[in-house]
Amino acid sequence: MPTQYVETQYFTFGHPPNELVLKSGIKLGPITLAYETYGQLNADKSNAILIFHALTGDANAAGWHKDAKAPGWWDEMIGPGRAFDTDKYFIICANCIGGCKGSTGPSSVNPATGKPYGLSFPVITIEDMVISQKYLIDHLGIKKLLAASGGSMGGLMALEWSVRFPDTLESAILIATNYKHTAQQIALHEVARQAIMSDPNWNKGDYYGKELPAQGMSVSRMIAHITYMSERSMEEKFGRKLQDKEKVGYDFSHDFEVESYLKYRGASFVQRFDANSYLYLSKALDYFDLSEGTDLVGAFKNLKTKFLIVTFTSDWLYPSYQSKDIVKAMKANDIDVSFIEIETSYGHDSFLVEIEGQSKMVSHFLNNVAKKVIK
Amino acid sequence: MPTQYVETQYFTFGHPPNELVLKSGIKLGPITLAYETYGQLNADKSNAILIFHALTGDANAAGWHKDAKAPGWWDEMIGPGRAFDTDKYFIICANCIGGCKGSTGPSSVNPATGKPYGLSFPVITIEDMVISQKYLIDHLGIKKLLAASGGSMGGLMALEWSVRFPDTLESAILIATNYKHTAQQIALHEVARQAIMSDPNWNKGDYYGKELPAQGMSVSRMIAHITYMSERSMEEKFGRKLQDKEKVGYDFSHDFEVESYLKYRGASFVQRFDANSYLYLSKALDYFDLSEGTDLVGAFKNLKTKFLIVTFTSDWLYPSYQSKDIVKAMKANDIDVSFIEIETSYGHDSFLVEIEGQSKMVSHFLNNVAKKVIK
Repeated sequence: MPTQYVETQYFTFGHPPNELVLKSGIKLGPITLAYETYGQLNADKSNAILIFHALTGDANAAGWHKDAKAPGWWDEMIGPGRAFDTDKYFIICANCIGGCKGSTGPSSVNPATGKPYGLSFPVITIEDMVISQKYLIDHLGIKKLLAASGGSMGGLMALEWSVRFPDTLESAILIATNYKHTAQQIALHEVARQAIMSDPNWNKGDYYGKELPAQGMSVSRMIAHITYMSERSMEEKFGRKLQDKEKVGYDFSHDFEVESYLKYRGASFVQRFDANSYLYLSKALDYFDLSEGTDLVGAFKNLKTKFLIVTFTSDWLYPSYQSKDIVKAMKANDIDVSFIEIETSYGHDSFLVEIEGQSKMVSHFLNNVAKKVIK
Repeated sequence: MPTQYVETQYFTFGHPPNELVLKSGIKLGPITLAYETYGQLNADKSNAILIFHALTGDANAAGWHKDAKAPGWWDEMIGPGRAFDTDKYFIICANCIGGCKGSTGPSSVNPATGKPYGLSFPVITIEDMVISQKYLIDHLGIKKLLAASGGSMGGLMALEWSVRFPDTLESAILIATNYKHTAQQIALHEVARQAIMSDPNWNKGDYYGKELPAQGMSVSRMIAHITYMSERSMEEKFGRKLQDKEKVGYDFSHDFEVESYLKYRGASFVQRFDANSYLYLSKALDYFDLSEGTDLVGAFKNLKTKFLIVTFTSDWLYPSYQSKDIVKAMKANDIDVSFIEIETSYGHDSFLVEIEGQSKMVSHFLNNVAKKVIK
């Protein structure tokens, strides 16, 4: 049990007429960011680390909320003596815009209408998500982050920050990520979106206060879960085990444990995540291409950040070769980059569960960065 | 253009009180099998080869139907001078029971009620599908097949035949297949089934003559297509190409070619395949486990068949290691087995499109078998 609780804070900016101009050219404001911090910001504000969450994550990266059943999503990585050591560093994590965990997104009330945005929410990009968090860092008075880090979508955001705001970032730790979404990654997202949008309850995004698109969300989550695991981890966890050994199938009920598990995870998803947010965030990922209009070597030419890049052997959703392409393009620019591929069967989920290997790499890397920066 | 057309034939058996007793113990009959033959059966009926189709295949393995837009699904493999050489061999292909291409399945009219079976159709297994085709081979007066072959589900059927009817099979060619469905294979099928069953038009399987479950079928097909390709083949075919270069996205319409392609393939699926058949056949695959109640070495102990087993490097749905497990268990039984893993980026689809490599292996293998058997 926790000895003290963490609480989410809120920062609002971009009130008209000073709205944020998104990549699409559309203006959005006011924007609220839900965020949490752990540890203490030091006197010269040189020990701040910004953590970015993955697609369905939130600002509660670590610690316990009052009455919560589980701690934050990266609690094993963040805390006293942990990889992101709160005895040394000041950790910040914000819910991204477009999300549904306290930051402005499609389920937020549009102040202009008094109703939830729904599909009138503008399409947002990874760039927009990163730029909005720069406002938060400025608000906290931090001129240069010691590090930015995240897995999956969070890794893309850390990489985007390093390109967009090179003078504000000492180092970045990119985990299980990519620099552009590939055809397969786009395809898997599109199936999930189609599953949601074909649910009659989705109702073109207008379901707030009505029946939720539970079936569509469930199917989309089942697909996602399969992509987050590996063939081997599914085999190790479930194999052909039956849900009820007494009852041998011959119908379409859930005979196999893997079926019941996915169905259960699918069914609970609609309770914890907003369907429209899933559409917006997955599309933001698909649009992301750091090499757009240039090549990757060109995209990295002004980088001033030191990198640690981590991948996992069994991650078939964000396979290691994609990170190796990033490493090559960085090396072509003489950027200081370390790369490690961790042997594990956990698939893409590894960034959440393969704590030991990651912790060692991350704490060693951060120690080296910190001893040059923190007085 | 074809110089002559092929026609589907029909064989009916199992009229009450002589119904087929299925693995579940339930009786099914009468049963009709739609089948086609190519080439000539020789005088001593020693040149017959039985081809099994994959999940959504049909009896039209080769040749053109009148007014068809395309030839049979394995036309490049079957014909004069081709791998399955119709100048030498008599090729048979039947639609499996549970299917929807002429053989008895859930969309067939139940003679007892005068209405389509729908979900009152009994659950069928790979074993039931194989046993029903044994009736056809007996009907054709063939005592021993020169070979049985198929890819994916067809490979499972050929393997099951070799175990169940060892005295009736000289050789078998198993392509891109397995001996039991793994957790990931079951999981991918279950998502597809859930997508279909969550479509309100599915209506517990009672949609014949009504609105079809088009949305659910579309989502299920999109998932399947992704699993049939490889990460690399998707990247090579689509990459991040946009559907309409003039229109850069920022909404949920289909910006990327891969999205439009999958949507198109998904939308057309409901026109060519019965949703209930998809449920029954995918479940039959998931139930299949040749090592059930024994181990694979034990399951193979009475085999008398010579095997060629083919896999493809980029096939992640039926990865090569699964076939290698079959090879090992066969070798432990001193069974004559050749194994080849073909280097290709086409993924599971390779058995349909990687013709050159397969043809060489198959025709060489069949030549060797035939010269000992055919006088």
